[in-house]
Amino acid sequence: VPENIKLEQKILSRNDIIAGELRELFRREGIKVINMVSSPGSGKTALLEKTLEDLGRDLSIAVIEGDLRTENDAKRIAATGVPVHQINTGSACHLEADMIRKSLDHFNLKDLDLIIIENVGNLVCPSAFDLGEDLRVVLISVTEGDDKPLKYPAMFHRADLMVINKLDLLEQTDFSVDAVIGNARSLNPRIEVLQTSCRTGAGLEGWNRYILSFIPQSRQRIV
Amino acid sequence: VPENIKLEQKILSRNDIIAGELRELFRREGIKVINMVSSPGSGKTALLEKTLEDLGRDLSIAVIEGDLRTENDAKRIAATGVPVHQINTGSACHLEADMIRKSLDHFNLKDLDLIIIENVGNLVCPSAFDLGEDLRVVLISVTEGDDKPLKYPAMFHRADLMVINKLDLLEQTDFSVDAVIGNARSLNPRIEVLQTSCRTGAGLEGWNRYILSFIPQSRQRIV
Repeated sequence: VPENIKLEQKILSRNDIIAGELRELFRREGIKVINMVSSPGSGKTALLEKTLEDLGRDLSIAVIEGDLRTENDAKRIAATGVPVHQINTGSACHLEADMIRKSLDHFNLKDLDLIIIENVGNLVCPSAFDLGEDLRVVLISVTEGDDKPLKYPAMFHRADLMVINKLDLLEQTDFSVDAVIGNARSLNPRIEVLQTSCRTGAGLEGWNRYILSFIPQSRQRIV
Repeated sequence: VPENIKLEQKILSRNDIIAGELRELFRREGIKVINMVSSPGSGKTALLEKTLEDLGRDLSIAVIEGDLRTENDAKRIAATGVPVHQINTGSACHLEADMIRKSLDHFNLKDLDLIIIENVGNLVCPSAFDLGEDLRVVLISVTEGDDKPLKYPAMFHRADLMVINKLDLLEQTDFSVDAVIGNARSLNPRIEVLQTSCRTGAGLEGWNRYILSFIPQSRQRIV
């Protein structure tokens, strides 16, 4: 086994141990966790802004933002009034469970129902790193091409839900919704699918319902 | 120095040595090399198809395609009649100089004027890996957001040219061409900029001229 593969296995197994500890902590605290992954620019932050506007009064939500550099996304999220912590990974191409553990110091866990993690925009590297989440959501925008699941299989294989985003641009592209769903399900027959546009609002109600379905009724304030 | 940083330095310095050897080989053979990098779905393959249609008669071009999986891109390129070799990286998130070296067995170098490498779609990891290229081109599509240079600085810092692609979708986005250029130049004041749309053909003539300006006149057949 070459040196770099051995080290990769060591890093991944260390990550899995911490992720397991996080999952146990989240369970104990009654907090659900979503890990959002995608290419750069698929619209994760925009979808998150809408989600916080719509659900921020019903649920106590916190957000963890992952980027190599800048606080741009944290500022956008902070504007919605939701607690947010920005992780700057420097040159690292993904978030790791240990980074999430350290982020938790910035929140009062007792108060929280849901943590949404926005991973680094990268359709490759984040796939291997469990963050202790309940739900992994992969976004794909219609401008990216419907063959992306086949070209980046690990990401779609390990996701629970695929959100097809920027639906408002569909007519200006050659993207086929049927093809992308077929491609994703050829890798992961159980992957769920939603279609959204943050610009027109299409599909956002379904997305909100999907999130709420994971939160125990007792913790939902209005709904 | 932690173990993983030491290993990363070792991998990078080994890559730099091979890239240096490749650069010397390309210089000796009179072959120019372009390394195209971007997010998944920014339109690298579509731009390449147009380029090969426009320049494939004037220049002897070969293409190296990098993807985790599938031969989709190689098939698209092969349809233009240009020699192409697909590298499937498996789980690796970038191309390395050693992969390029092995690819060269598939081409007759004596015949070639230009090799275009389409890297794995990833705005992080390919930035650190020199492939022996003369020119590194980063594509960004207008649907990705104009802050991407600030969020993925290494990629824009090391590129010679930024191609702003999918210009036809500009009006349907909040993307500012001035902002993205300002952001890229704040990291890399000498980066050149072109704007293209493969759908309308806008800017493609300038892109072709840019490529031809790198090829010695003596090797251009018609032009």
